[in-house]
Amino acid sequence: MRETLDFLLNDWLRVGELSARERFADHNAETFGAVLDTCERLAREKFAPFNRLADTEEPHFDGEQVHLPQATHEAMRAFVDAGLLAGSQDYELGGMQLPCVIEMAGKAFISKASVAMSGYAMLTKGNANLLMAHGSEAQREVFAKNEFAGRWFGTMCLSEPQAGSSLSDVATRAEPEDAADPLGPRYRLKGNKMWISGGEHEMTENIIHLVLAKIPGPDGKLVPGTRGISLFVVPKKLVTPAGELSGERNDVALAGLNHKLGYRGTTNCLLNFGEGRFKPGGKAGAVGYLVGKPGEGLKCMFHMMNEARIGVGLGAVMLGYAGYEASLEYARQRPQGRAIGPGGKDAAQPQRPIIEHADVKRMLLAQKSYVEGGLALELFCARLVDEANTGDADAAAEATLLLEVLTPIAKSWPSEWCLEANSLAIQVLGGYGYTRDFPVEQHWRDNRLNMIHEGTHGIQGLDLLGRKVVMDGGRALQLLAARINATIERALPRPALAERVNELAAALAKIGRATKSAWATGAPEEALANATPYLQAFGHLVLAWIWLELALAAEGESDFARGKQAAARYFFAYELPKIDAWLAVVASREPLCREMQDAWF
Amino acid sequence: MRETLDFLLNDWLRVGELSARERFADHNAETFGAVLDTCERLAREKFAPFNRLADTEEPHFDGEQVHLPQATHEAMRAFVDAGLLAGSQDYELGGMQLPCVIEMAGKAFISKASVAMSGYAMLTKGNANLLMAHGSEAQREVFAKNEFAGRWFGTMCLSEPQAGSSLSDVATRAEPEDAADPLGPRYRLKGNKMWISGGEHEMTENIIHLVLAKIPGPDGKLVPGTRGISLFVVPKKLVTPAGELSGERNDVALAGLNHKLGYRGTTNCLLNFGEGRFKPGGKAGAVGYLVGKPGEGLKCMFHMMNEARIGVGLGAVMLGYAGYEASLEYARQRPQGRAIGPGGKDAAQPQRPIIEHADVKRMLLAQKSYVEGGLALELFCARLVDEANTGDADAAAEATLLLEVLTPIAKSWPSEWCLEANSLAIQVLGGYGYTRDFPVEQHWRDNRLNMIHEGTHGIQGLDLLGRKVVMDGGRALQLLAARINATIERALPRPALAERVNELAAALAKIGRATKSAWATGAPEEALANATPYLQAFGHLVLAWIWLELALAAEGESDFARGKQAAARYFFAYELPKIDAWLAVVASREPLCREMQDAWF
Repeated sequence: MRETLDFLLNDWLRVGELSARERFADHNAETFGAVLDTCERLAREKFAPFNRLADTEEPHFDGEQVHLPQATHEAMRAFVDAGLLAGSQDYELGGMQLPCVIEMAGKAFISKASVAMSGYAMLTKGNANLLMAHGSEAQREVFAKNEFAGRWFGTMCLSEPQAGSSLSDVATRAEPEDAADPLGPRYRLKGNKMWISGGEHEMTENIIHLVLAKIPGPDGKLVPGTRGISLFVVPKKLVTPAGELSGERNDVALAGLNHKLGYRGTTNCLLNFGEGRFKPGGKAGAVGYLVGKPGEGLKCMFHMMNEARIGVGLGAVMLGYAGYEASLEYARQRPQGRAIGPGGKDAAQPQRPIIEHADVKRMLLAQKSYVEGGLALELFCARLVDEANTGDADAAAEATLLLEVLTPIAKSWPSEWCLEANSLAIQVLGGYGYTRDFPVEQHWRDNRLNMIHEGTHGIQGLDLLGRKVVMDGGRALQLLAARINATIERALPRPALAERVNELAAALAKIGRATKSAWATGAPEEALANATPYLQAFGHLVLAWIWLELALAAEGESDFARGKQAAARYFFAYELPKIDAWLAVVASREPLCREMQDAWF
Repeated sequence: MRETLDFLLNDWLRVGELSARERFADHNAETFGAVLDTCERLAREKFAPFNRLADTEEPHFDGEQVHLPQATHEAMRAFVDAGLLAGSQDYELGGMQLPCVIEMAGKAFISKASVAMSGYAMLTKGNANLLMAHGSEAQREVFAKNEFAGRWFGTMCLSEPQAGSSLSDVATRAEPEDAADPLGPRYRLKGNKMWISGGEHEMTENIIHLVLAKIPGPDGKLVPGTRGISLFVVPKKLVTPAGELSGERNDVALAGLNHKLGYRGTTNCLLNFGEGRFKPGGKAGAVGYLVGKPGEGLKCMFHMMNEARIGVGLGAVMLGYAGYEASLEYARQRPQGRAIGPGGKDAAQPQRPIIEHADVKRMLLAQKSYVEGGLALELFCARLVDEANTGDADAAAEATLLLEVLTPIAKSWPSEWCLEANSLAIQVLGGYGYTRDFPVEQHWRDNRLNMIHEGTHGIQGLDLLGRKVVMDGGRALQLLAARINATIERALPRPALAERVNELAAALAKIGRATKSAWATGAPEEALANATPYLQAFGHLVLAWIWLELALAAEGESDFARGKQAAARYFFAYELPKIDAWLAVVASREPLCREMQDAWF
């Protein structure tokens, strides 16, 4: 993977050019490489050897504490000690001022080694980043800084048992207590939060929850809809304004752990806020401090959600990558069968490694095109984040808009196709792949979560077709189309890419037409009835574009370059044509699904 | 499901007409219904409540015995006591002379309740059926009869650690010992067999293994290739010609259990034959009796394999069906979100059941089209078996040929698409679906086996494109095309089906052209490089045909009929168009995969 990563960063994204920017002035190819070296070593030594253990020794709750394998404690400690939680932060926050794209490239190694063991890091970083953007100075100083230092870990608490995809139905109440608390306006929260990853553990002395809740109106009622949602920072243990533990336990109690299909190394919790299990200040109610303004909770949270969605995408990619590497290694070593030649097969000859069979190569090429393409996409998004943060005003605005339209793809596409990669990895190993003696079955189980959390596939489709491609009069989609056309322009002079150029141009035109047709009647219920097939087609368009980019970047006749050319060709020959089937129902506003009646099932 | 099953059997396949045949003369709609009632009750009482237990209490080996949950013992006993193992056998064998199609319809209930707990039955029945076809009278009397009676269970032992898909590399040796044994020519076997389902357990007093092995030539060497393979019946405990246990243990020893991703209720074993753990007659070597002629082992075994492949298909379908029912029930009860109307959503209104969302209905319709279509396909194949067994000569020959071309589809298509149904069921349940508190994650794990065992997807593709569609000058494909065209003829007068008729005719023509193009150069390595995409396209063509058949059979405006029409429309609108992408690489003989080099990965 390192060679591909270096290719993507250096030859394709040209990250070296970032050193010219003031924020990254201390960095160069060497410092970037050192970060990757560190992550690669940590992944190999602290995470990969324990990934199966984190699955079999599922977290358990003894009524008082949640127990995780010691290996998880040690791996996360090593991650923190290497300064990786704060990698992209300011020097004054203990950070390294790394570009996001380098931070993400480093994270790729960790995720590939154990996405579940490292889940705590992604949540903590996202939580602290949100507080940096929307918290008060005291909140940044007390909470975010201690999170970046790895002293405390963080969570995001959105869902409730009755409110998963429908956040407008959040019912956790926040009653005001003291508007003048140094840590921010103080409230008492009461409600139940579901699916809280990292919600309980003993790895750090405190856990910082970011919680969506509603402040009741003068009539004591909660405002319906998302407008009523505010955001609160709720520590598991209360802290002083100086950032020390006060010694008092907040009223946040673990109600139970979820027992999952996979991704078991990350605890997943049902948390009760304010049920009276603990009585801070002598009374029930979880103490929380308002972050940002009342009613703007969801807006603030989306700061974390977008980051989390790209993080989910990267995790999905790296699970796919892990399976690809495992099945490639197996295919090279496992003898089985013989080549089909003009004269059939000669059973008297020794068996050949299965990598020589066309169908096995097909399964490996599919995986390669999914996982390398997916990795390129996630790094491209991270590079856009850097542009949004450090580019000039126009470039930053463009990057921000492109991120809007690419985030649903960065989240959903690998969740679907790198899961498929994991299934193909099992298939390459055959019966062995179906046993727990090999890692590929765990990758597949772990990866199945990614189409669900941080916004399901259905939600991503609605976000893309219902919001992102129509926002600002379709400006984000136009920007993306301009980028795709620019790639096509660059590829035009290359005869070897002529077919690919035509196919990509045709696919882009089809997406454009389907988008227009979907909205031709202006009726959301008609347009959005096929939002998921639209999401699938859009994702394949984006990946085809990425692969044309990579084919352009991988020049020459080296084995490495030929591999990239082959994967690009695979994607165009075997994958891109699938968009026609998906777009047909979008363009015709096929009404079957919305007209279907319960009684007919 | 019962309503759909009755519709498929009575309205579509008209099984009542079978009563006119001598073999089924005692049967009628009532006796058929009674069998289904029995199976439905057994499934509900003895299997379904323990399916999760069979997963969590995985079989374990204490060094002497393999332990299964008591519930599995009791469920299999109840199955045997109801006479279901011998359902389609002659009266004189203790059977009921049921048509295969009825037997399979009954089995559908059991498989839906617990495919893994009931795996032993499928193997035993297949084993005994093979002996009925190819065994000597003594073998039928001693082994098959006791298997049908459920006194002993059976297995099939093909794979070895170094010979999975490549059976020509079977290395188990069979040395002649006594040509005049009353149970058949007696040999001593020595070798290791892998992936043996049902290979060890204590449910029955004996286990009857059917084992592929090679008889050495005069030079002591094994003949390379499949021609050298012979078939032996090898009991775990030796038996007398009178069918009683002799008291002596055969030299068959469990080397270990495989620990699987799913399907855990069926033991899966590594068996050592003839390693000397036991010494029947005072010496090492597993005692086995030749079945059929030397060198014809694979031909005999395929008798069981074809049956097993349709059985695998049914199992895959029923896992899909179980997930469909679970997710449908959940979607009807779970409130979340609100309808998208022209004015957006009104958060002040109560939440609505998720079955009202178009995307949820899409996921349910997809499942419905996969699992009901898949069930129809498996029953159709079973009905063909009845035709092959009891039809007049021409009809029997035609049915046999159709079965040849449909078996790879009956096996592979549900393995892929009913697995996808299981994934959609998880998605409908969201986070809950990802927990082990709901059954859908287990269905998905269980179903992942079906693309692997009894011939992988890759093997099915080679069988279809490399053998079945070209055999007898393409006669099987022509027959299928004639059947499809007959359906089209019947649908022509129905205006509501006009679009479907055109689409099916076009798809059939595309398959015909792609088949020709694939073989245009006559080079197997060129044709077969894309055998798997061909298999996928062919499967979707067959299912589209099945759905047009069902749309024709489901007349009227009842909710039931409208559901079938909607599922048919779903399949044609959302699924059938996928064949273009698959066939493009087949028709162009896309050489990418076979030309790909190891070093380029």
